[in-house]
Amino acid sequence: MAIITLTTDFGTRDPYVGAMKGVILQISPGIRLVDLTHEISPHEILEGALALEAAAPFFPPGTIHLAVVDPGVGSPRRPLAIAAGGQQFVGPDNGLFSFLFCAGDWSAVRLEAPAYRLPAVSQTFHGRDIFAPAAAHLALGTPLEQFGPPVTDPVVISWPAARREGDQLVGEVIYTDRFGNLVTSVRVSDLETLGPASSLTVEVEEKEAGKLVGCYADLPPVGAGAVIGSSGRLEISVREGSAVAVLGARRGSPVRVRKQ
Amino acid sequence: MAIITLTTDFGTRDPYVGAMKGVILQISPGIRLVDLTHEISPHEILEGALALEAAAPFFPPGTIHLAVVDPGVGSPRRPLAIAAGGQQFVGPDNGLFSFLFCAGDWSAVRLEAPAYRLPAVSQTFHGRDIFAPAAAHLALGTPLEQFGPPVTDPVVISWPAARREGDQLVGEVIYTDRFGNLVTSVRVSDLETLGPASSLTVEVEEKEAGKLVGCYADLPPVGAGAVIGSSGRLEISVREGSAVAVLGARRGSPVRVRKQ
Amino acid sequence: MAIITLTTDFGTRDPYVGAMKGVILQISPGIRLVDLTHEISPHEILEGALALEAAAPFFPPGTIHLAVVDPGVGSPRRPLAIAAGGQQFVGPDNGLFSFLFCAGDWSAVRLEAPAYRLPAVSQTFHGRDIFAPAAAHLALGTPLEQFGPPVTDPVVISWPAARREGDQLVGEVIYTDRFGNLVTSVRVSDLETLGPASSLTVEVEEKEAGKLVGCYADLPPVGAGAVIGSSGRLEISVREGSAVAVLGARRGSPVRVRKQ
Repeated sequence: MAIITLTTDFGTRDPYVGAMKGVILQISPGIRLVDLTHEISPHEILEGALALEAAAPFFPPGTIHLAVVDPGVGSPRRPLAIAAGGQQFVGPDNGLFSFLFCAGDWSAVRLEAPAYRLPAVSQTFHGRDIFAPAAAHLALGTPLEQFGPPVTDPVVISWPAARREGDQLVGEVIYTDRFGNLVTSVRVSDLETLGPASSLTVEVEEKEAGKLVGCYADLPPVGAGAVIGSSGRLEISVREGSAVAVLGARRGSPVRVRKQ
Repeated sequence: MAIITLTTDFGTRDPYVGAMKGVILQISPGIRLVDLTHEISPHEILEGALALEAAAPFFPPGTIHLAVVDPGVGSPRRPLAIAAGGQQFVGPDNGLFSFLFCAGDWSAVRLEAPAYRLPAVSQTFHGRDIFAPAAAHLALGTPLEQFGPPVTDPVVISWPAARREGDQLVGEVIYTDRFGNLVTSVRVSDLETLGPASSLTVEVEEKEAGKLVGCYADLPPVGAGAVIGSSGRLEISVREGSAVAVLGARRGSPVRVRKQ
Repeated sequence: MAIITLTTDFGTRDPYVGAMKGVILQISPGIRLVDLTHEISPHEILEGALALEAAAPFFPPGTIHLAVVDPGVGSPRRPLAIAAGGQQFVGPDNGLFSFLFCAGDWSAVRLEAPAYRLPAVSQTFHGRDIFAPAAAHLALGTPLEQFGPPVTDPVVISWPAARREGDQLVGEVIYTDRFGNLVTSVRVSDLETLGPASSLTVEVEEKEAGKLVGCYADLPPVGAGAVIGSSGRLEISVREGSAVAVLGARRGSPVRVRKQ
């Protein structure tokens, strides 16, 4: 049974996700549907890309990831299907899949063939009319090439990364999660260039945020600290509390890592 | 594998939806469950009906739609199963299924047979005790007639529609979605009686709201406009912004469409 | 097809639940996944336990309930798998499963065997690295004993209950649901010791809250009342309104039941 995951900024209150699932099940009744999230902030392409990048690798080979964060729906932005890393991805060509194009082999096509769209394509809901049918037909085994011509120049958005400044790493907060953890652009591989983890200390918004520790339970009872989060990024956290609230930080806040 | 969709005002935090799914899976282990939404505003029957009307048609023939927005649980309001449009519907007789009774053939029964209920029926949770078991037994192929006597006079609620006033259409906002779009009671078929789409302009709350355009990307960079939304209704939108916030409109706000 | 349910405090916006589902599907591709809730308040173990207690019994024998409310992740708290009541449970040993240990036979093991974990176990996300793989391997039929040594002294948290004071019952509000109903620690079996239901009246926060009635529709048009809720507990409710808002009560508010 093939798997299609769904990642959108549609929320779960409106009927949009339901309509997409109905379309998929009409075409590919045996499919297994898994929601990644529908709570991407409206139109926030980078946030959608980070969510996909964090969850997709845990799915089996052959999984199809349908992702729709699509402020340009109805404009000439291209609809894409992509094969990368043994999985397939379907969604708009607006940077949502940037992380695929910087990591190993990939191939992409423009979704054009009318046979793999709904008969009537609206100007406002390509998730239902173009992307959901494409994902369902991929799940049935239709080869990528049959959907349309190759795309070799997909849109790639600027991806937040850390940079070295002398013996410090400079990055930023890229995401804040439900627990108030500050996920940063600093990766574990960046940290390894700086020195042993136990010797590192972190600043956010130009203020001391604490030491790098092994896990949440090692955080100090008062104040903050940093851990290597579950997706291999430095995270700034408060023990059983919210680093967002305690440190007054948010997406875009500058982060600095240095030796003590 | 049969499909049961779920539409409720239960939210996703409380254990109510989980209990319903458990009951369904006990009776019909091979069923496929698809959430439409559980975020219908508490007790808002019309909102639930609009959600069902928007999503149900995209599901395959034979799909069973279980819908519970049920302020009258425990009162004498009738529990129903309905066959319409090649699908089946289960839920309370309070207007939630009004759209079915105005569109083509249907038949309905009152859910009475004890064999298709939980052994003990509470006074407060018919979703779990009556409606979930009925949906599961329908999925197993139990004919509609076996659930109870026919119902020929189901409750139909007043359905928001647009009316013609001279050379204008007058309607209202019936729903606001996650993106702040104002979904109106004006349908594309109403608009066609007025003139070419490119000549139409829209007012909301007695104030100019902009022209009718083809898609969100054609909206002006500043101010609002209107599009034909994905369910065939006129929607008032702001480009990459919220029409709710920009126009100060909400459910019930008056809408007027006229030629420029 | 085996069933794994999921109960967490992860919310549905972050990629954490998606990653857990991917891990499960890699190991056990034929599994059926059912979300109970991901909206447990962060780190609220009792709230998670109440949700599980309310929904789990409605699932078929053999169901595996994966529950992760885990403020102590990375600390020495034990990871558990438990067999109880014909079902299995997986999650941290922090009281989340207290209700199982007071009700009939159970057996538990500590999750230790590396074969049933991800190859690399992070210090911050045991839901993905330890608990999801364990649930998936249980679903494949791996016997409980193979996961690790027996645990005979699991953590049990204090469970809210009602007590008799003369001819009154004294309890508290333990949960408030989406409709604003106040779910209390008073069970129907407690009430039966006090007298006929029709003779009982309820106080919350030292103020009269109304009589015990049969169902929501029997509540008075104005003011509040009480019903036996769907999980067999006394609930204080307002007809088509919110008892939380009307009575100013919340979790922990004292509740008193007496004869009129």
